Amino acid sequence: MSSTKSIICKAAIAWKANTPLSIEQVEVLPPRAHEVRIKIAYTGICHTDAFTLSGDDPEGDYPVILGHEGAGIVESIGEGVTNVKVGDSVIALYTPECGECKFCKSGKTNLCGKIRATQGRGVMPDGTSRFKCKGQDILHFMGCSTFSQYTVVADISVVSVDPKVPMDRTCLLGCGITTGYGAATITAKINPGDNIAVFGAGCVGLSVIQGAAAKKAGKIIVVDINDSKREWAEKFGATDFIDPLDLPKDTNIVEKLIEITDGGCDYTFDCTGNVHVMRHALEACHKGWGESIVIGVAAAGKEIATRPFQLITGRVWRGCAFGGVKGRSQLPGLVQDYVNGTLKVDEFITHRRPLEEINQAFHDMQHGKCIRCVVNMA
Amino acid sequence: MSSTKSIICKAAIAWKANTPLSIEQVEVLPPRAHEVRIKIAYTGICHTDAFTLSGDDPEGDYPVILGHEGAGIVESIGEGVTNVKVGDSVIALYTPECGECKFCKSGKTNLCGKIRATQGRGVMPDGTSRFKCKGQDILHFMGCSTFSQYTVVADISVVSVDPKVPMDRTCLLGCGITTGYGAATITAKINPGDNIAVFGAGCVGLSVIQGAAAKKAGKIIVVDINDSKREWAEKFGATDFIDPLDLPKDTNIVEKLIEITDGGCDYTFDCTGNVHVMRHALEACHKGWGESIVIGVAAAGKEIATRPFQLITGRVWRGCAFGGVKGRSQLPGLVQDYVNGTLKVDEFITHRRPLEEINQAFHDMQHGKCIRCVVNMA
Repeated sequence: MSSTKSIICKAAIAWKANTPLSIEQVEVLPPRAHEVRIKIAYTGICHTDAFTLSGDDPEGDYPVILGHEGAGIVESIGEGVTNVKVGDSVIALYTPECGECKFCKSGKTNLCGKIRATQGRGVMPDGTSRFKCKGQDILHFMGCSTFSQYTVVADISVVSVDPKVPMDRTCLLGCGITTGYGAATITAKINPGDNIAVFGAGCVGLSVIQGAAAKKAGKIIVVDINDSKREWAEKFGATDFIDPLDLPKDTNIVEKLIEITDGGCDYTFDCTGNVHVMRHALEACHKGWGESIVIGVAAAGKEIATRPFQLITGRVWRGCAFGGVKGRSQLPGLVQDYVNGTLKVDEFITHRRPLEEINQAFHDMQHGKCIRCVVNMA
Repeated sequence: MSSTKSIICKAAIAWKANTPLSIEQVEVLPPRAHEVRIKIAYTGICHTDAFTLSGDDPEGDYPVILGHEGAGIVESIGEGVTNVKVGDSVIALYTPECGECKFCKSGKTNLCGKIRATQGRGVMPDGTSRFKCKGQDILHFMGCSTFSQYTVVADISVVSVDPKVPMDRTCLLGCGITTGYGAATITAKINPGDNIAVFGAGCVGLSVIQGAAAKKAGKIIVVDINDSKREWAEKFGATDFIDPLDLPKDTNIVEKLIEITDGGCDYTFDCTGNVHVMRHALEACHKGWGESIVIGVAAAGKEIATRPFQLITGRVWRGCAFGGVKGRSQLPGLVQDYVNGTLKVDEFITHRRPLEEINQAFHDMQHGKCIRCVVNMA
């Protein structure tokens, strides 16, 4: 069902870097061919939104409607859309899946190349925006822009999921939970009994923990300098918690992890975005085969480093985006895992806000006691 | 057959760093339990020997008998040795294979942990040396010390091979050829048609090329600043040769490789030991799945670095020692590949020297026209 009408609704606009979002009336143009207009019900807020808003993201541009962790209902579809229909309960995908490009067909990655260039420039695949406000075009963000009551996305950037699952839950599968859970269950090849370490116990780190537990990992060691995360980590399946600040002065975290795992971890995961932590994560891997997976997004210009001897002696450094999960092929399965009780989602929601308080939601996120704040877009 | 007698023979001793080797009469003690005394016929000279001799190796200690790429005949064996017998044609293994330790049993690595600590300290597994000269103990090197007419190694550090193959050939399988060929055929999982790039066309790099050709790689691109290596590279199966110094000023090698492979290489191999080259090798990998394998040994204190985004977007950084080859299990197979004509070895020998000219052999190696100098120990 195609629509030819614009919709006027509310959206949180970032007019410029390092300034609070502004709730505005925006015009959301109808979807064009192979586009889908979604009425967003709920959106999560993620550190990547805050990173771009801070102005530290060298690719960030303004004015823009941020948000990439959202769920809603398909309001209308453009010509040629076959994968979703009006009324579907959907999740927006910042990592699209066209199924046709070199990447999708490789069978080796979830990164899709089809609309990468335009998505990076903040426009739809035809090079234009569907948002207008105060007479000017507003940019899209990560192909999602879920901080708007209505948004338009490419059809390859949306997936239908089980409509029985509440959308304040499914929205969180649009980024954080899937990123961590996928890193542990898809990117890493955890065998039963493998020892793993997770650096950073936020939404992503906690999701790594539950993925590792699902794969029957042995020791699941969580490293966080916020001691209040201990309880959280244990709730999701951690067997050990280390606050590096509690270690004796002459012991570093790498030595400690190697000691308690008898040689190092089979897999480690960086969920901090801190390049020094990334190095520790690599060096805490077991000689001969340990793999470290970078998940956290580092600040612009930051680099990771290590002695090449770490690699020569068998450690592997890799990373993933969206946990290595193919959104259209694999996200419905994760929703079913939630339905079946094998994937925790409810537990992540520590805060709730209406759209009007979205700036407070950003502040919530900076506090250790917040795992995820879900914003109600109604 | 165990021997209780010492042997007096000639060996090249490194009395201290950054000084020519000195040919001396040394006493080689008889092998103890689980040790093997080998009459070395030929030894290659490798950059690792030069690195330690230079004094730049922080773990180098003196006086020591260097050399780790040697072949010979078993002269006598200590108690309990069952894997080789007197008269066997053997290759010394700087990467031993005990078959019993956590590493050997993992099925994931060729690094054996059994005698690592003592080997690193330059002594036999019982903590003592089998070499004496001028009244003092002389250290072993990498568990091999092939710069002596007779040497003693642990039984897990030696493998019998087809006696019909001349030992001036088999010696080269003790390090360089196996390291490169194994990196391409065992560590990397090259599929037919995959595009690969090899940085540095010395003995190791040329061996990567022939391994990649054996795996039916597509483009095999060789990068070397020594233009005379072009002919060598092609002889071993390279499809393309790039001298980065020939590129236009505004084109770097990473961009060039990405351009000619339509997105980047499936596998790249650093055979230079230069950490800047290692970074180029990683960044020239294909987004989504390209893997870079560090083979070259970097100078002490040098570190590799990149933006973590390179990993987040699917590139993988790994490394290997001895090509990932398990010496006792897999080296006899490589010797058979040579016998069958599928593994080139003869072509690597560009220079020959008697033991007396071993210092000149080190100089030979520094020149681009030398691939391998084989030293006749007779």
